[in-house]
Amino acid sequence: MTIRGRFITLEGGEGAGKTTQIARLADRLRACGISVLTTREPGGAPGADSIRALLVSGATDKWDPISETLLMYAARRQHLTQTINPALARGEWVLCDRFADSTLAYQGYGHGVSQTFIAGLYDAVVGGDGPDLTLILDMPVETGLSRAGARNAEAAAGTRAAEDRFERMGMAFHERLRAGFRDIAAQEPGRCAIVDATGEIEAVSDAIWQEVRTRLAEDLAGAA
Amino acid sequence: MTIRGRFITLEGGEGAGKTTQIARLADRLRACGISVLTTREPGGAPGADSIRALLVSGATDKWDPISETLLMYAARRQHLTQTINPALARGEWVLCDRFADSTLAYQGYGHGVSQTFIAGLYDAVVGGDGPDLTLILDMPVETGLSRAGARNAEAAAGTRAAEDRFERMGMAFHERLRAGFRDIAAQEPGRCAIVDATGEIEAVSDAIWQEVRTRLAEDLAGAA
Repeated sequence: MTIRGRFITLEGGEGAGKTTQIARLADRLRACGISVLTTREPGGAPGADSIRALLVSGATDKWDPISETLLMYAARRQHLTQTINPALARGEWVLCDRFADSTLAYQGYGHGVSQTFIAGLYDAVVGGDGPDLTLILDMPVETGLSRAGARNAEAAAGTRAAEDRFERMGMAFHERLRAGFRDIAAQEPGRCAIVDATGEIEAVSDAIWQEVRTRLAEDLAGAA
Repeated sequence: MTIRGRFITLEGGEGAGKTTQIARLADRLRACGISVLTTREPGGAPGADSIRALLVSGATDKWDPISETLLMYAARRQHLTQTINPALARGEWVLCDRFADSTLAYQGYGHGVSQTFIAGLYDAVVGGDGPDLTLILDMPVETGLSRAGARNAEAAAGTRAAEDRFERMGMAFHERLRAGFRDIAAQEPGRCAIVDATGEIEAVSDAIWQEVRTRLAEDLAGAA
């Protein structure tokens, strides 16, 4: 019987380096002989990608915050049922760039949507299929937005599509996000680890690897 | 101070004649001196129309039933906040082709999504802004699907876009819908009226007008 894979999510504000760090972590896990699937939210499944397109571009106020929350969870349900759960069942480890904590941080802490309402959606959509480990990449808001801005300059130069709707939501919004992610980590220390993301890529990658090796030591030993 | 308008929804299975009957009812209300807005779900607001496009075409199993439910409510929230509530506040009467009862019937009774979960979404998204009167157009499933099929033959001939994803869901599904709408009417007789939709257009229109005149007599008198 195939042993179910582990589900690891990377969370954090804009420009925290999640995409880069997921690729590094995937390399390290593969070097241990583990099959890895990297994915991201919103998106990661055909229907979920259609919803992503509605969410990540356009006017910052184009969605009512409750609609935005429901769209995130509609996409998440597709992602879980079509992509994440099947991969875990095949024994792969899934590394996901953003998951439910981003909805709680962005729509809950950021936009003021009821956290009780969001918790009810989590129970109905995710239930017991949540992440085994969540790495929260933390850095000052100004540093992150400055990095994200450089990324968007590339997009403006036509090399990538602009997906900057959330980045344009203002400094106070992003400060609430950061505080939200830290709150979440404090409330669920068994699942969540905060990683200082201000250092060099290699240093952050080492810190992440240290958390994974410590927290999932038995799983790594079993998978290798 | 402007008196808030009345909110009337028309519900029922495919091919029940809701679109035709909404136009007739709007004419009759306008003849009474009432300002009327006719609209429909899913859709009725810019973001909601984008969601509609995801829902009404494509493979019948393209959405997980929970995702589908969340998309319907995401669209509904946009529709309420951008279109329905502002019109009611201006004193207009709003006639809406499908609303929350369709989600309970299609995704709840039809697809088996938890009715408690759907009720929680209703409370968060609609709350006290629900319809004053709901007219449920009832007819045998075979009659409705046969009428809807004729409409889709037009679409196939290129005169209209095909929006037939739900119609293609099979007879047993549509029988559950019909039973669901009748259950809803039985549970909320103060809000809901079942109208026999098997007769001629004029006869159904007269039956609808009789329900509106009886149930909203004071409002009609006040608005005229």
